Amino acid sequence: MASDIAVNNLDHLTWGGVDTVLLAQKYGTPLYVIDVDMVENRALSLKKAMQKYYPNGEVTYAAKALFCKALSKLIAKVGLSLDVVSGGELYVALEAGFPTERIYFHGNNKSQIELEMAVKNNVGTIVVDNWYELTCLEEIAAKEAKTQKIFLRIAPGIEAHTHVHIQTGQEDSKFGFTINDSLLAAKKALASQYLDLTGIHCHVGSQITNLASFTLTAKTMAQIKAEIEKAFGLNSLELDLGGGLAIQYLPEDPLFSPEELIEAIYKGLPDPSVKLHIEPGRYLVGQAGITLYTTGSQKEIPWVRKYVAVDGGMADNPRVALYGAEYYGLLANKPSLLAEEKVSIAGKCCESGDMLIFDAKLPQIKPGDILAVFSTGAYNYSMASNYNMLPRPAMVFVFGGKDKLVVRRETYSDLLLRDVE
Amino acid sequence: MASDIAVNNLDHLTWGGVDTVLLAQKYGTPLYVIDVDMVENRALSLKKAMQKYYPNGEVTYAAKALFCKALSKLIAKVGLSLDVVSGGELYVALEAGFPTERIYFHGNNKSQIELEMAVKNNVGTIVVDNWYELTCLEEIAAKEAKTQKIFLRIAPGIEAHTHVHIQTGQEDSKFGFTINDSLLAAKKALASQYLDLTGIHCHVGSQITNLASFTLTAKTMAQIKAEIEKAFGLNSLELDLGGGLAIQYLPEDPLFSPEELIEAIYKGLPDPSVKLHIEPGRYLVGQAGITLYTTGSQKEIPWVRKYVAVDGGMADNPRVALYGAEYYGLLANKPSLLAEEKVSIAGKCCESGDMLIFDAKLPQIKPGDILAVFSTGAYNYSMASNYNMLPRPAMVFVFGGKDKLVVRRETYSDLLLRDVE
Repeated sequence: MASDIAVNNLDHLTWGGVDTVLLAQKYGTPLYVIDVDMVENRALSLKKAMQKYYPNGEVTYAAKALFCKALSKLIAKVGLSLDVVSGGELYVALEAGFPTERIYFHGNNKSQIELEMAVKNNVGTIVVDNWYELTCLEEIAAKEAKTQKIFLRIAPGIEAHTHVHIQTGQEDSKFGFTINDSLLAAKKALASQYLDLTGIHCHVGSQITNLASFTLTAKTMAQIKAEIEKAFGLNSLELDLGGGLAIQYLPEDPLFSPEELIEAIYKGLPDPSVKLHIEPGRYLVGQAGITLYTTGSQKEIPWVRKYVAVDGGMADNPRVALYGAEYYGLLANKPSLLAEEKVSIAGKCCESGDMLIFDAKLPQIKPGDILAVFSTGAYNYSMASNYNMLPRPAMVFVFGGKDKLVVRRETYSDLLLRDVE
Repeated sequence: MASDIAVNNLDHLTWGGVDTVLLAQKYGTPLYVIDVDMVENRALSLKKAMQKYYPNGEVTYAAKALFCKALSKLIAKVGLSLDVVSGGELYVALEAGFPTERIYFHGNNKSQIELEMAVKNNVGTIVVDNWYELTCLEEIAAKEAKTQKIFLRIAPGIEAHTHVHIQTGQEDSKFGFTINDSLLAAKKALASQYLDLTGIHCHVGSQITNLASFTLTAKTMAQIKAEIEKAFGLNSLELDLGGGLAIQYLPEDPLFSPEELIEAIYKGLPDPSVKLHIEPGRYLVGQAGITLYTTGSQKEIPWVRKYVAVDGGMADNPRVALYGAEYYGLLANKPSLLAEEKVSIAGKCCESGDMLIFDAKLPQIKPGDILAVFSTGAYNYSMASNYNMLPRPAMVFVFGGKDKLVVRRETYSDLLLRDVE
């Protein structure tokens, strides 16, 4: 992460080659800034690592991490597939012209309307989560006289080492068929002329730092795949292991390479002929994004803590309040200054839990300084709210020294757009 | 709470006299439904209790709990004052024509632009949180040649018994002046011809079930008030003790009356001549609101848990994921049916933490049933996000058997309104 930090001759932090202080002036703060080159580089190295171990493999971007029309176009351009989890995400992808055959539709409770939308728009693969969906989808495909490709989502009973809120593979999960039900579900799918069972899917958690989890998952899913294939005389089910690779939030966090991830999977599933799928979200966009804030009020409580408040907070980044997430920040307008103070960065929402960083080491801060918070590309814009009626920030793409506004800042009048009385 | 539940002759839950199943059909789900009469009744009983103990007292609604133009008009109509915490909330109040002299502007990091907006629009009282704001505000008032009424926010060092995220009165707080600084801040305010120090303010937490906290707070703040008055020869500083009274989330939770709250305060401050302010938010709107969901997929994990998923979740109600909040629900389309199953209600977001209720006792649920979740009037609409690109629900006011749409449902195209690329 420290290697990502570049400083120009004005002693301003640059991001994607662009002066972040100028970005703050041009677009205001809080501001989401996404380094497009970093997203592209990670996409390419994921594809390369996949190619090395599994030549038929496919890398799919999990839109829920960060999504807008511009990002959809970028993902299409770099040749990744797309994982959407709702009619809303599908709508954005369609509006952005994403190739529908490369879309995978996930979710534990897709509505009938969402399933119809997917089938009518020729979404490539629907990842069926449960019995109810399997029945609904068959009816819809029959009505549309289509044969719909599907994966079955399975909960393999693996507990990845991560926050309990973002563990998803364990047995007590709202997601997927139990291992016991997977054979029966496959049987039902295979019996239908409107469903084409092409693969099985799982996802064991997010922000996973223990690569052995991926090895174990691959091994377990390979067994389930083999059982289904044996039971029904199949021989080439695709295997989708979801996402979940950890990123660096703090400089001291480990950074895993795509190759390490795929190698860990290969250890559990040493068969290059398998059509493997992975679905990184956070890994592609998380570290590419920073948020720029302007500092405001300060409060020093002797012997206790010094608070510095910024012009955003839990409305644009709820991850601290939700998961106790830890972030790293520095002063974008003087990154080289000695970090001599321990301060805690507070948001501006009327809530004690609205904090961004506890006990950050930073230089003396003055009101009007620009604070850059790193690794905010994932699950910030996508989880943002209007809490306290704070308008949501703009988002800018930067690439090779240029910047481009892709999502404009919300206005006060936007906040009343849906008020009809 | 159980007493709030009314059922009509179709065995449908009614809310504000309106059949909730018809509401779900008419407006779709998820749907926020607010019983206007309940809000009015709570407002009136708060005013009455205040009147009994403190004839000069004032009851102010904390907009952050739930705010839209229609609610602003309702609060104005019932004669409460209004607490806003941002330029956005102020904007909504202004658009709804709320009398500006009855507006109190709070916040730990008001921007210069927000303070200018408040002064220019003749906001009655600005609750100054810190030194930086005190200086900024004086400059702005001077520039506008106005004398701005202010309260000083003080952190009285009281830890109310509630979730650590919503404790705000303790010494280690991002809010307010320390007790030590309060005299100096008062001195600075009193020295300015552009500032009119009329009161002091504190807020010790939210969802407080221990009324003794209010007695202690009143006593402590009365001492601070007396010290400031004595030091500067004043005799009638107003005293604002904020909000924080708990509501019933579960039927077994205690329900406090407005009279119990004011009586608890009076125990600590037995002086009817004081101009006391309280700022309830949740207490006014929390129990008046329910959310209607449609049930979808189900998943039974033998010996572990049965999940029933609904068409909303943490995007429209993040309080379970944020605070571990507990909710009570029942089937709106068959409320009298025997609760014979233990099920857990999951949301539809792609995240394990997206749960609404764990281990609810409910009748057998079929897909398409309507689930009503109670006490969602506060901090649901106001904290809602578009996570997973889920459009935000509509909000309906019900009153005496009638219903009125006040905030329309978000559409897919709304989700792209700010995309410029």
